[in-house]
Amino acid sequence: MSKPIRIAITPGEPAGIGPELVLKLGQLELGCEIVAVASIDLLEQMNRKFNLGINIKPYDVNSLSHKHSDSELFVIDVKIVNKVIPGQLDLANAGYVIDCITTALNLVKNNKCDALTTGPVQKSMLNEAGITFTGHTEFIAEKIGGSPVMMLTKENNHDNQTSMRVALVTTHVALKNVAKNITKQRIEQTLTIIHQDLRQRFKIPEPRICVCGLNPHAGEDGHLGKEELEIILPTLEKMRKKGMLIDGPVPADTAFTQANLKDNDVIVAMYHDQGLPVIKHSGFGEIVNVTLGLPIIRTSVDHGTALDIAGQGTADVSSLCTAVKLAAELARNR
Amino acid sequence: MSKPIRIAITPGEPAGIGPELVLKLGQLELGCEIVAVASIDLLEQMNRKFNLGINIKPYDVNSLSHKHSDSELFVIDVKIVNKVIPGQLDLANAGYVIDCITTALNLVKNNKCDALTTGPVQKSMLNEAGITFTGHTEFIAEKIGGSPVMMLTKENNHDNQTSMRVALVTTHVALKNVAKNITKQRIEQTLTIIHQDLRQRFKIPEPRICVCGLNPHAGEDGHLGKEELEIILPTLEKMRKKGMLIDGPVPADTAFTQANLKDNDVIVAMYHDQGLPVIKHSGFGEIVNVTLGLPIIRTSVDHGTALDIAGQGTADVSSLCTAVKLAAELARNR
Repeated sequence: MSKPIRIAITPGEPAGIGPELVLKLGQLELGCEIVAVASIDLLEQMNRKFNLGINIKPYDVNSLSHKHSDSELFVIDVKIVNKVIPGQLDLANAGYVIDCITTALNLVKNNKCDALTTGPVQKSMLNEAGITFTGHTEFIAEKIGGSPVMMLTKENNHDNQTSMRVALVTTHVALKNVAKNITKQRIEQTLTIIHQDLRQRFKIPEPRICVCGLNPHAGEDGHLGKEELEIILPTLEKMRKKGMLIDGPVPADTAFTQANLKDNDVIVAMYHDQGLPVIKHSGFGEIVNVTLGLPIIRTSVDHGTALDIAGQGTADVSSLCTAVKLAAELARNR
Repeated sequence: MSKPIRIAITPGEPAGIGPELVLKLGQLELGCEIVAVASIDLLEQMNRKFNLGINIKPYDVNSLSHKHSDSELFVIDVKIVNKVIPGQLDLANAGYVIDCITTALNLVKNNKCDALTTGPVQKSMLNEAGITFTGHTEFIAEKIGGSPVMMLTKENNHDNQTSMRVALVTTHVALKNVAKNITKQRIEQTLTIIHQDLRQRFKIPEPRICVCGLNPHAGEDGHLGKEELEIILPTLEKMRKKGMLIDGPVPADTAFTQANLKDNDVIVAMYHDQGLPVIKHSGFGEIVNVTLGLPIIRTSVDHGTALDIAGQGTADVSSLCTAVKLAAELARNR
């Protein structure tokens, strides 16, 4: 039998729904081992609050197996400063959020775990606490290197619906700065990583990649912007000459029709709000955020911290569950 | 019995699928009268080519009724310069495209027809022929006045799916110029028109309007752009004080989830590719483009000229059909 796959999990913002979701994972059969990296005190507090009956056990880093049995959760304890009140952000706990991510990252880097799955953080809170944090992706790349590419995926192995994958050339950039960030170099790097990771990690032998234009109607032959003619088209041509199957630049408004999704393995959007509204419309809660281009495998949930429903016990674990399962699948594919 | 509703229809680009679609309308029961404004020679050519057996009749502008019976199509003849080869654009026919729109517009303006439904044109071809044409909407507003707002709608009166309406603050603007076009005045005007037309034309007594931010995550409290705090938020507050039900600015990537669509009658996107990819993903072919804020009622198809399949007889009439039916419904609501 193959070596068991073990996933490190960070719950993210302690006042959000993350801790509740990680506890709920302990009730599920995931097909892999999981190790939560979080405050045991906080998890025990939520365990009692929601009457979940999870048996929280300290993780022994040297144990060969942490087989996940029913209602059992292995945890690496990370100290938190203040007691958490669900829904209320506390700047004093910002360092804890970062400590969890760093500890989990080291577990994966040192091959104690096979992949990392992260829960949602409150970026503005971290920034207000004086920690520069643009996103998990950027933070991880800074710690362990790589050229991260954000991809959201709705994998439909289980039914006959079309899979949908959306990757981004730029991510957390103010809209007025997007156009100047669309360079030949960035597009080339993004497409190279997508092509490589879809082949190696997703086991798609010849990925079909469809690239959106930057402007409405992909610039309409230069009448609505020149970036397609001057930057995108020549770069795609270069990539095609390297043997990649690339369509585009196509108008974004018709890139996501069912017919075009069937014809492609991934749609590449030039910026955040060109691509993510579609995939989150299509299957909010079933979508996984995968970071391509990193030396490690990392997946994440598709939702935020949901402070408004934190502490109520009603948070839906499906996105985190899907994120863990995909991380395990990608780890097995290696 | 109420006065019959009569819709003027322009097929748009003669080398595209428009003429074929208008002929196919002649085979359908639409619940209203239609008058095509096009070259009779061209329509007869396509009628023979596809063996449609449509009885093409010249429209008598003074007749009180043009009851649409099976396989009959009333047409106001507009002269075309060159014989059309499907799929091949011909700059010499650019003037014909404009003549059709102008003629149809006058019919509606002079109350000979109740509304206008337009087929797809090839904007780049018109521009190359020396005609300034940003879009039907802008062209019509220049001829007859008004402050046009583009809205795409998927009306689901017939089943229990959620309706989806997406309106735009800016339309055909190069991406790098979008941010500078987002002004308090433009947002206020757009919301005022949406509110008014959803009440008067769509008969929604208290429209619930959800407005997207400009930046990813709606600017994340100013960390990803200032336009939300400086421009959008204060304008929405002003509109709320006037009694409108307005939510936002919300992050665009979660504005189109099923839950949020159920809670709102329209989602307002700040720009073209923030909103249109979602609705075209959701129901390409069932969507109608409605221009709000004009003195007349105007609807349009959600697709382009489809030059690649023109002349094959395989074009799908459903979007044009839905556009005509919605135009008739809005005319009846007046």
